[in-house]
Amino acid sequence: MKKKNKKVNAAILIIGNEILSGRTQDKNTAFLTNWLNSKCGIIVNEVRIIPDVEKIIIHNIKNLSKKFNYVFTTGGIGPTHDDITAQSISKAFKLKYGFNKEAYKILENYYGIKNFNDGRKKMAKMPSSAKLIYNPSSAAPGFIVKNVLSLPGVPSILNSMIENCKKFLVKGKSIYSKTLNLHTVESNISKELGQIQKKYNTKVEIGSYPFFRLGSVGVSVVYRSEKKYLLLKVYKDLMKLTKSKKIKLLNI
Amino acid sequence: MKKKNKKVNAAILIIGNEILSGRTQDKNTAFLTNWLNSKCGIIVNEVRIIPDVEKIIIHNIKNLSKKFNYVFTTGGIGPTHDDITAQSISKAFKLKYGFNKEAYKILENYYGIKNFNDGRKKMAKMPSSAKLIYNPSSAAPGFIVKNVLSLPGVPSILNSMIENCKKFLVKGKSIYSKTLNLHTVESNISKELGQIQKKYNTKVEIGSYPFFRLGSVGVSVVYRSEKKYLLLKVYKDLMKLTKSKKIKLLNI
Repeated sequence: MKKKNKKVNAAILIIGNEILSGRTQDKNTAFLTNWLNSKCGIIVNEVRIIPDVEKIIIHNIKNLSKKFNYVFTTGGIGPTHDDITAQSISKAFKLKYGFNKEAYKILENYYGIKNFNDGRKKMAKMPSSAKLIYNPSSAAPGFIVKNVLSLPGVPSILNSMIENCKKFLVKGKSIYSKTLNLHTVESNISKELGQIQKKYNTKVEIGSYPFFRLGSVGVSVVYRSEKKYLLLKVYKDLMKLTKSKKIKLLNI
Repeated sequence: MKKKNKKVNAAILIIGNEILSGRTQDKNTAFLTNWLNSKCGIIVNEVRIIPDVEKIIIHNIKNLSKKFNYVFTTGGIGPTHDDITAQSISKAFKLKYGFNKEAYKILENYYGIKNFNDGRKKMAKMPSSAKLIYNPSSAAPGFIVKNVLSLPGVPSILNSMIENCKKFLVKGKSIYSKTLNLHTVESNISKELGQIQKKYNTKVEIGSYPFFRLGSVGVSVVYRSEKKYLLLKVYKDLMKLTKSKKIKLLNI
């Protein structure tokens, strides 16, 4: 993975009626955003969840691939009739949709010639010029074409493939993040937090997230920056705030 | 809730850096899509997750409110500096952003005049003409303006408010859904499933979702339609398929 000394961003496109119907809880967003953030210094700026409808997939691929450095799609690369991600991406980029020789061989080996039926063969069909993202758990590869990386929807399979995406990605500037958990409510510190945010302007991003757990209420203050030394400064400001308001810190 | 005898759709706009950074797992999408589907006959056609950035919120509100019957936003209506949903929606619709008298009273009563500080007062600020969505758990109301309903990001609070959205919604045509769990892999039935889908064209939507659990592999076939009698027909076709391929049904 090459390193770029500036911000690199990405969008995630979750393709699947099962998420939109509420049948399945999406787990890929949390996994991908975490991995991209922590392992690649890539910021995810937008996530979209859309149905298995060709024209909608095409529209979103065109739109997001122009706006962001990378687009990660999940879902729709399996063997059934509702798996239309590869053909839709082909159309979005006006590329031929057909067998990828390497993917064909991988799948033929995996299933054996006798059991290599049409559904299984379908998983070797991709946009021409696609490069493979290998799948150590169930053989059927993902692929990258232009700046779009296509991964399967099943979380355990996606997770097993993620390291194989690295060689296609340029690493962004690392972003450092700290969290302070305060035994208070947001509205008790909102004015002062706003002042601290103002002081550091866009150089530090401060977020505040209330929580209710373990029979306790609290606020997680998350502060993120490309500059490590600024996090220490924000920490000192936050400690001043907690002292003046007599707010206890929580270890959670 | 009035009933409309045609399709009613919605988009969900999740506003929050904490979801995009991977810090927090979004739970509101699954809850909202389920509730809208099952209780209101409203189909969610798109979900977007975006950061706490004013111009991005404005762009998405404008875009989604034109494309869908309803837009549900979650997050960004609390007391802190990063809560900018209400002011962004005001700007998107060119409405004045200021105190809603009723919300002001509710919050003043809840906190007591002495403790009603600026952060808490901020939660009474909304687009002019907004109507309140009452909050039985922590007082601070959500609101609806035009076809946009704004709810908080904390799942337990959002869940407690959801029934209060009903009076603002027009009910869509009910969609019936059935699931058959088969002890097989997708690529073993993909051809036949595709043929069944073709037979019913757009009248039934058939999805196939592989699963790996309880030490077993299987496929959930989900079929959905506005016409109940068609589900019975699809069921019969699926039973023929399982018989001819000697596939066991799974009770999971």
